[in-house]
Parts: sequence; C-alpha cells; structure tokens
Amino acid sequence: LYQALSRCGANGWCARFVERHRAALNFTALVLGYVLYLIVGAGIFSAIELPYEQELRQELKDARSEFLNASPCVDEARLEKLLARVLEASNYGVTVHWNDSDQNWDFISSLFFTSTVLTTTGYGHTVPLSDEGKAFCIFYSLFGIPVTLLFLSAVVQRIMVFVTRQPITYFHRRWAMSKSVLALIHATCLGILLTLLFLIIPSWIFVTMEKDWNFLESVYFCFISLTTIGLGDYVPGSTHNKQGRPHPHLYRLGITVYLLVGLICVLVMLETCCELPHMRRLRQRFYNEKY
Amino acid sequence: LYQALSRCGANGWCARFVERHRAALNFTALVLGYVLYLIVGAGIFSAIELPYEQELRQELKDARSEFLNASPCVDEARLEKLLARVLEASNYGVTVHWNDSDQNWDFISSLFFTSTVLTTTGYGHTVPLSDEGKAFCIFYSLFGIPVTLLFLSAVVQRIMVFVTRQPITYFHRRWAMSKSVLALIHATCLGILLTLLFLIIPSWIFVTMEKDWNFLESVYFCFISLTTIGLGDYVPGSTHNKQGRPHPHLYRLGITVYLLVGLICVLVMLETCCELPHMRRLRQRFYNEKY
Ligand SMILES: [K+]
Ligand SMILES: [K+]
Repeated sequence: LYQALSRCGANGWCARFVERHRAALNFTALVLGYVLYLIVGAGIFSAIELPYEQELRQELKDARSEFLNASPCVDEARLEKLLARVLEASNYGVTVHWNDSDQNWDFISSLFFTSTVLTTTGYGHTVPLSDEGKAFCIFYSLFGIPVTLLFLSAVVQRIMVFVTRQPITYFHRRWAMSKSVLALIHATCLGILLTLLFLIIPSWIFVTMEKDWNFLESVYFCFISLTTIGLGDYVPGSTHNKQGRPHPHLYRLGITVYLLVGLICVLVMLETCCELPHMRRLRQRFYNEKY
Repeated sequence: LYQALSRCGANGWCARFVERHRAALNFTALVLGYVLYLIVGAGIFSAIELPYEQELRQELKDARSEFLNASPCVDEARLEKLLARVLEASNYGVTVHWNDSDQNWDFISSLFFTSTVLTTTGYGHTVPLSDEGKAFCIFYSLFGIPVTLLFLSAVVQRIMVFVTRQPITYFHRRWAMSKSVLALIHATCLGILLTLLFLIIPSWIFVTMEKDWNFLESVYFCFISLTTIGLGDYVPGSTHNKQGRPHPHLYRLGITVYLLVGLICVLVMLETCCELPHMRRLRQRFYNEKY
C-alpha cells in the first residue's frame, strides 16, 4: 500500500492520471464552479432584495387598505376584480389611466418589438395578445433568429478586420512588439472606448430624455439591453412622463438603431477578447482535445 | 458606349466586378434583406395585434368606469393613485391581492433569477428593486455571462463529439455514404428528436401543471425561453392559480434545470446545423475572404 501511495508522486500513476484527464478535471471544476457561482449569486440577491420586497408588499397593502377606508362604499371583491383586470392588461403592456394616445402596436413600436425579439433581448413590455400573434411570433423567430445570427456574425467578421486584426498587425510591424502583449493593450483600449461610447454617453442621454431615470438606472438599462438580458423593467419611451418629448416615434427608432449597433459592438468586443492568446489557452484547457 | 456595354457580358469588366466583389455584394444583400425582414415582420405584428390592443384598452376602460359607477363614493384621483401604485409594484413582480404567502426573492426564486439572467433569458417577472440590487446585477452578469458562455461552449463541445461527430463518422464508415448527405440526415433526425424531447413533451407537462395555459401558450413559453428571448408574459409558477401544486420550490428548481439543459440542446442543434457543409458554404458567401 505504502509503495502504491509513494508512486503517486511526480511520475506515478496518479500524476499520469491527472495529466491524462487534465481537460476532464478542468471541465468538472468549471461545472462545479459555475453551479457555485449561481448559488452564491442567488444567496446575495435574496439577502439584498428580500427586505425591499417585503417593504414594497407592506406599502402596497397599506395603500389598498387606505383606499378602502377612504371609500366606504367600495365592495372589496369588486376592487379585487378591477385590480386583477388592470394587472392582466398591464402584463400585455396595456394601461388605460395614463397617456392614452399612443399605442404599443403602431408600426414603429412593432419594429422595435421585432428587433428586440430577433436579437433575443425581448423586454416583454409589449407582448402578442392574440393566439395568431403568438403563433406568428414563434414562426417569425424560428427563421429570424438564425438569420440574425448570420447577419451579426457577418457584420462582426467585417468589423473585426478593421478594428482588431489590421491595427494589431500594423503596430506589430511598426513597433516590433510581441503580438500577445499588443493584443492585450488593444483589447483594453477598445474596451474603454466602447464602454464610453455605448454605455456612458447613451446613459447620459437617457438621463436627460427619461425624466424619472437616474444615472444608475440608465447604465442598468443600457447594460441589461446590450447583454440581451432585457429584463424590461426600464424601457425608454414607456414611462408615464411623456410630456416634453417631441418625437416619440423618432426616439423609439433611434433606440432600435442604438440597440442593434451597440449589440454589434459588444460582439466585436467579445470576439476581440476571445482572440486574445490568453483566452484561447484558457478555453483550450476545458476542451476535449482529442476531437 | 455600345461596345462598353456589350463587354459587360460573361467575360467583361462588369462580370469581373461582380466576381471580385461577390462577398461584398452578398453581404449588402444580406443587410438589406435583414432590414426588409424586420420591416415586414413589424407590419404583420402591427396588423395582427393592433385590433386586439384596442379591444383590450376598451375593455379596461369599461371595467374602470363600471367600477366607478358602482361605487359612487370613490374619488377618481384616489383610484388613479392606487392603480399607479399597484402597477408600479407589479412592474417589480410584487402583487398583494393574490396568494400572499410566497416570495419572489426566497433562495430558490433567486436561483431561478440568477440562472435566467446569466443565460441572458431575463424574464423580468422579478427584477431587483433596490439600487444595490441593480448595481450587483450589473457586476454579477459582467463576470457571469462570459463564464456562462465558456461553460456552455465547453459543455456543447463535449456533447457534440458524442452526438454529432462520432455518429456521422461511424455511419460514414459503415454505410459508405457521402458525409454531406449523412450530416443532413443526422441533423434532421436530431432536430426532430430534440423538438420532441424539449418542446413537445415539456409543453404537455406545462399544460397539466399550469391550470390556465393551453398547449399553444405552453409551446410559446418553451420556445421563447429556449431561444433566450424570455418575454416573461408566461412564467411557470407565477400565475394566480397556485392551489393544487404541492412543491412550488421543487417545481421552480425543475424548471431551472430544464431551461439550462434545454438551452444546451438548442446550442448543440445550432452547432450541428453550422457544421453542415451546406451551411458552411452559405456562411462563406457573406464573409470577407481576404482575412
Ligand atoms: K432576453
Ligand atoms: K427578456
């Protein structure tokens, strides 16, 4: 036994086992690490948000009982029914008691909807109401999403040539620096530039355009949109403070273009990072090298 | 002039221009076609949904005025205020007047939230309420999404070996068929199998689990989730018909696992399609081949 254990040294079967299955072990570590990351994140979110949720729930209860006290003639069941109606309609993006004039399904808003669905952002601030709409949505994205992927990858491939490969080759020739270091510097500079252009400046614009968004909320919206998470809790042009915005359609069209261009830039940045020699080596570690 | 035009034949400069810039012309056609696809889709959605939206809006107005007629003591401004409160809270996923006992930010629900954010599905049925929560959400996804991409691509690469490359090689040797035809047959079979396993059967299960979903709505939910659009109009376990479901936490955990595994299968299917010789040629057409 002792001999068997002692052989598990630098040249023993144990080391050889590790060596042979390095990719598999790394992969297992990645899976476990990922599950752990999910669990830790869930714990932190729960710890941060649970008190706020309870507070909001209590406030809502208070508002409701206050309303019922102030209006003694109201039948509670009737109020419940109205609230259920209002909430169901709001789930489909329809509210009646604010600015009534603008629609969720006029042409420009539909264009905004289609572009957010095809980029898989899908805010859900407006959703198809009818069965036909739902069926068409499935059919439309079934073809549309692969085409979007093809479109985005072709655009990104073309941009990559001018933004990443040519500059690195140029400076590599000019300064005779190592390509690996140059790629790292280039990725950092590009990251800073794109963050400024597509996160900080648009957030500033949103702070001035949307009256009830602060800077954090604007950054949150841009980030959640450009990563295609699209939670839909903040959607420009759908808050109830619409006065003072002269061209709502132009504004929504502008946002559609911003989201598409921004997504392309995020993908260019992602591709630039993936092409870093460090990243390639990192990825290789988890891959099954036999195939 | 005539001579110049006549030279624009099979061997003229025009044909040579087309030949030389074929990738660029294809790319332009792709961009224009994509924009057209967006516009046509927007038009169809607008045509389908606008009447339903107006109907829902009218129904909501009627419900509101009916309530006001039945309760003469109600101050309209006060009702508006209550409705605004209720809608704002519902935007954060908090409703008070239904089943009060379960929370949006208990541990399992938070786990569901983190997994949907990291896979960029982001239903938005619950969203961070507090500024800390929003900031943590940005920070968490900034690291989490690249890790998720790495995790998914490593898993998909491993699965691809067993599901696609080995079977094709095996049948290629055994039946001596062309690899191109085999790959096409294999992709079709795999597509049918995965559709059955991850779209049709789960939809059936959801029809029995969620009392107010019909089959189209279940398919719609599965499709919108597995493509990571995540509109969030249908989220299992968050409807108001909760009686008769014995283990809500287990149910939500099961859905989390289903969504992760289903996403992996969608990615395997996508990768299988991308590796088809036909698809490779198609992609090559739009790429700038010089680099
Ligand atoms: K999404
Ligand atoms: K979403």
